[in-house]
Amino acid sequence: MTHTLISPLDMHLHLRDEAMLKVVAPLSAHSFVGGIIMPNVVPPITTIEAVIAYKERIMSAIGNNVFEPLMTLFFRSDYTREFLEKAALHVKALKLYPSGITTNSEGGVASMDIEVLRPVLDAMSDLGLILCVHGETNGFVMDREKEFGSIYESLASSFPKLKIVMEHITTKESVALLDRYENLYATITLHHLLITLDDVAGGMLQPHLFCKPIAKRYEDRDALLHVSLKAHPKVMFGSDSAPHPIHKKECCGCAAGVFTAPIALQALVELFDKHNALANLQAFVSNTAQTIYGYKAPHKEVVLEKTPFVVTHSYGDVVPMFANETLAWSIKHVL
Amino acid sequence: MTHTLISPLDMHLHLRDEAMLKVVAPLSAHSFVGGIIMPNVVPPITTIEAVIAYKERIMSAIGNNVFEPLMTLFFRSDYTREFLEKAALHVKALKLYPSGITTNSEGGVASMDIEVLRPVLDAMSDLGLILCVHGETNGFVMDREKEFGSIYESLASSFPKLKIVMEHITTKESVALLDRYENLYATITLHHLLITLDDVAGGMLQPHLFCKPIAKRYEDRDALLHVSLKAHPKVMFGSDSAPHPIHKKECCGCAAGVFTAPIALQALVELFDKHNALANLQAFVSNTAQTIYGYKAPHKEVVLEKTPFVVTHSYGDVVPMFANETLAWSIKHVL
Repeated sequence: MTHTLISPLDMHLHLRDEAMLKVVAPLSAHSFVGGIIMPNVVPPITTIEAVIAYKERIMSAIGNNVFEPLMTLFFRSDYTREFLEKAALHVKALKLYPSGITTNSEGGVASMDIEVLRPVLDAMSDLGLILCVHGETNGFVMDREKEFGSIYESLASSFPKLKIVMEHITTKESVALLDRYENLYATITLHHLLITLDDVAGGMLQPHLFCKPIAKRYEDRDALLHVSLKAHPKVMFGSDSAPHPIHKKECCGCAAGVFTAPIALQALVELFDKHNALANLQAFVSNTAQTIYGYKAPHKEVVLEKTPFVVTHSYGDVVPMFANETLAWSIKHVL
Repeated sequence: MTHTLISPLDMHLHLRDEAMLKVVAPLSAHSFVGGIIMPNVVPPITTIEAVIAYKERIMSAIGNNVFEPLMTLFFRSDYTREFLEKAALHVKALKLYPSGITTNSEGGVASMDIEVLRPVLDAMSDLGLILCVHGETNGFVMDREKEFGSIYESLASSFPKLKIVMEHITTKESVALLDRYENLYATITLHHLLITLDDVAGGMLQPHLFCKPIAKRYEDRDALLHVSLKAHPKVMFGSDSAPHPIHKKECCGCAAGVFTAPIALQALVELFDKHNALANLQAFVSNTAQTIYGYKAPHKEVVLEKTPFVVTHSYGDVVPMFANETLAWSIKHVL
């Protein structure tokens, strides 16, 4: 039994930089034909020169794979319209982080005050640049995304022509927002379709499943599954694959992030197959994203086969999700 | 500035066995005059011979310290009344674990069916043996203790003469039960007075603060603090100090438990001092427990002094809470 995916896209991807980039970029570039590259490297990507240089480093890291990195800028409220006009030639989106909310987000916005953000968001709206948002407050860890909901609502209603992507949503409340505001979209990760806080901290503590936003309750996971499996037209796959070296995951103060790039398609096919929703996976991993982003992806065929895939313990010093476990599907070949 | 505690007791203590026992027992025995020793060693303590032998191993591990281990049996629903009559000469309490709910609880009760438990609980009630309970269901990790509330209620009302200690409570709902049932009591740990889930998983993941029951919300912590600081007559200090070797805490599937024994009194004095409640600490760490357990502790004076205490990185291969941090109070001497 095989299943072919055409031009799969990862609409939320961390490729990091330097040695880590060289380890992880070929893995994403093997499975996917492109993806939205997150700009929270060190230092964050805030200039056109940095965008171009980072894209070149990515292209040289991916080897012979067909892969198009869709670049983003790290959102700053002091960008000028002139700068954004030029940037629009090089990036699809800007990623907004509330300051300090996740890995390498220290330079993020200090306040979500709409009036402070307005000049940049007006310009983005006019230029067709997409706003990607890490939507968490600094409240209690289980409430952060829900608390951010009112900010999503005020962004969506204040900038009705701006496309806003709620990144890596994890709650049923975020899912509900999709149908309430025309200009709100979402990415959903593989791991948030699979796990809850019980998997992270209900038995033994599992640092490799620790991520931000943290996995929530069963009813939240079910809401995410529901819209993903039915290929909701505003929902895109974004792995949020976030590699950290093992010594930053198995330690006494462990970094947040699940590394899923090399196993994402295999696990997605298994999940959608299990729910008799394989027919909707193409939309979830590619078509919907192309529509939302107004983007035509290069052609690539990823043929998956129902053959056991034993996931390796690590890629370099990065431990993937399902390390040492066996998935039901593997990638047979890529055309 | 000094503060003297008379005969402090730790009413919920894991001393483990063998090499670990030799590391941790002297640390508890230095600060405390006695404590309720949990029976979930490997294999669990289920016979009188095992109680006596474990107590001897503890006594030989504590060195020259004055310390009285108050022994417990691992609850089993098939104990006979005759057995319990004899056991009552050696143990103060039985500890009931739902099967598989925490470290070394695999042999716990499979069902909380009152009728199954009735013969043993009737006998315990008649014999004045105390029932200590790890009160969690196998539900969602944040709900387990709250869900167990109805079981506490049915135990309390079915066995009105049985003293039931809700061990290491972590929720405002458990606190509320104290005033609703005359025969419900509670132990509260140091760490649940200090941390919430935010400290475990809100920033970087902190395996050394991962415990069962998991730390909950701010309103839960505040409810625990409220009854502890005012020396609620049904609330006793129980550290649940639970040592694990470092390789089982900083790893890819980390054990639950916070090791607080050597820093507990110092941190408690700091906490109660900060809240202007030092006068109530004596009750919380000793007097209330003696009343509830009908126990007269040996005399010991622990003199604490407001002098910085730099907590060591580790005791043997066990990392304590506040490792490498500085507490405001230290133990000056023990008389």
